[in-house]
Amino acid sequence: MTEAAHGGPTEGGHDAAAVDRGRDLAERTRAGERRALARLLTEVENRSRTAEAALRILYPLAGQAHLIGVTGAPGAGKSTLVAALVGEARKGSRAVAVLAIDPSSPITGGAILGDRVRMQAYAGDSDVFIRSMASRGHVGGLATSTVAAAAVLDAAGFPLVFIETVGTGQSEVEVAAIADTTLVVQAPEMGDEVQAIKAGLLEVADIVVVNKADRPGADRAASHLRSMLTVGAQHDRAMGDRPRPKRPEVLLASGASGQGVPEVLASLDRREAKRRAAGTSGEADGARLARAEAQVWGILAERLRGRVREPARAAETKVVLRAVADHELDPYAAADRLLAALTDR
Amino acid sequence: MTEAAHGGPTEGGHDAAAVDRGRDLAERTRAGERRALARLLTEVENRSRTAEAALRILYPLAGQAHLIGVTGAPGAGKSTLVAALVGEARKGSRAVAVLAIDPSSPITGGAILGDRVRMQAYAGDSDVFIRSMASRGHVGGLATSTVAAAAVLDAAGFPLVFIETVGTGQSEVEVAAIADTTLVVQAPEMGDEVQAIKAGLLEVADIVVVNKADRPGADRAASHLRSMLTVGAQHDRAMGDRPRPKRPEVLLASGASGQGVPEVLASLDRREAKRRAAGTSGEADGARLARAEAQVWGILAERLRGRVREPARAAETKVVLRAVADHELDPYAAADRLLAALTDR
Repeated sequence: MTEAAHGGPTEGGHDAAAVDRGRDLAERTRAGERRALARLLTEVENRSRTAEAALRILYPLAGQAHLIGVTGAPGAGKSTLVAALVGEARKGSRAVAVLAIDPSSPITGGAILGDRVRMQAYAGDSDVFIRSMASRGHVGGLATSTVAAAAVLDAAGFPLVFIETVGTGQSEVEVAAIADTTLVVQAPEMGDEVQAIKAGLLEVADIVVVNKADRPGADRAASHLRSMLTVGAQHDRAMGDRPRPKRPEVLLASGASGQGVPEVLASLDRREAKRRAAGTSGEADGARLARAEAQVWGILAERLRGRVREPARAAETKVVLRAVADHELDPYAAADRLLAALTDR
Repeated sequence: MTEAAHGGPTEGGHDAAAVDRGRDLAERTRAGERRALARLLTEVENRSRTAEAALRILYPLAGQAHLIGVTGAPGAGKSTLVAALVGEARKGSRAVAVLAIDPSSPITGGAILGDRVRMQAYAGDSDVFIRSMASRGHVGGLATSTVAAAAVLDAAGFPLVFIETVGTGQSEVEVAAIADTTLVVQAPEMGDEVQAIKAGLLEVADIVVVNKADRPGADRAASHLRSMLTVGAQHDRAMGDRPRPKRPEVLLASGASGQGVPEVLASLDRREAKRRAAGTSGEADGARLARAEAQVWGILAERLRGRVREPARAAETKVVLRAVADHELDPYAAADRLLAALTDR
């Protein structure tokens, strides 16, 4: 048992047992075994060699699913909307997976799980697969793990994969960049659109859903958003900037009542059909390349971190980092020293 | 003029003009010239060779400031509280710098700047330095740029540096990890503490400020938070987990009215005095090492990206990433191929 529990896989993958386990999990995942799928996603979270072995098999089989990023400020009702979209997709008998990027906390006990409770309506439905992935401790590697998990769900045969993020930080923008289509959920409260803009969310949105459409002010929030986006596009043109690659559609819906939800799913499907038709030409290809980059860079970074932490190099690495922490060595010199040691191999 | 406008500096730093500019900016920054400081921070944002040259000089001179991370959900009133803390520090004639990590958008025009308007009270005060840094386009590298900018402000002689982030995503947790002390700002609205927990913010908090203390429910929100944190600590002990490294202090304040603000600054100062006394022993050292790691890894990653994009390798890199995007090559094989090319040099 030589799998690295933390810090990613070490190089080589000569661990025959892990390769066997990975192959087994990949085959059973392909065959539709949900327990194997769940187990494999845990391996992906742990960035184990088993995960690597499975992904090497599954990755070439992926590329069929529509990966839909769902993001927005806390409290906008993302989970409720996703649950409603899952219900809508099930009406058409389509299999759906939900990947909730959820930095859950040991402090809360059950509090956070409450969000997922409404998903329990699908507990007996093997065509609905819901999975939380903790982002904690994967600093800088969230996109890598998410892309890998999405590839597994894709290869497992789910045509729709929702990737739901918590919060409105840089990592959300990052996750949005790896989805085929990005849906930004917005509460109808005034001022929230400014927060979304601040967080850079509208820049990555393909569709903005003004949620809780049954609340007063929702129509006004939607038209305010539409006019802001129009002004933004005009501003960009006037400034001679290159045209914004996306001009998001603004839809009104209510995850709680179901109002507008079929229209959101229909819009998602239209976009996916267009993307398929465009193939590798045009902007539709951007997410594909972004995913590839995120994964390859993530793996490359892990390989390198593994190398500098190898027994032969760990002591030197520690000394170098300590010297930087004590302001005795500048970080550029430190990076060059580690790089020289690495490429010397 | 061979500076890389995007994608970071290429290696070597043999650009004599950039080195001269960097040296000049570093010297003038040390001498207290605010325009040079502002210019240098732009270079840091652009990750130019000029920035590298300046940082190599300034980094050994840093390590004197108290770096205070300020984070919390959008709308919690972070900017207002920071402005009040700046005012409080100025009463004691202390110089203060504010680094606002602000993914501002071309769509809004002036809307976001509104937040900074209240800071304009200090427009003529050369001992207050306020700077927004865009996080856009620096995916995965936010921590690196932030640490570098904080080191510049530190070496420029500011004893207090506030690092204010927008949003509640992974990047905020990341930024919190590089600050000496992390202050989480919380609105007194019910349910907001759950959002903070979700985002993993309470885990990184040294101090939680329940802001807008003049609003009804603020006292209740503070005691609710305190009891949740107590339960959390008990839970952790009962589960046999290692004890939480931090048990945050909960303070009530109002950035708008100034209520409780002197107490927040006093608490920050107490913590800093303790940290200084502890030296490299104990947990106080964690942030120092985290900063060193963030910077060195960031630079290492940039050097590598630079290398794979060098003319001699760019075509091969493009082919490899394209193959991954098309699911013809798995990302592990791709990473290994790029790594082999790199270390072959």
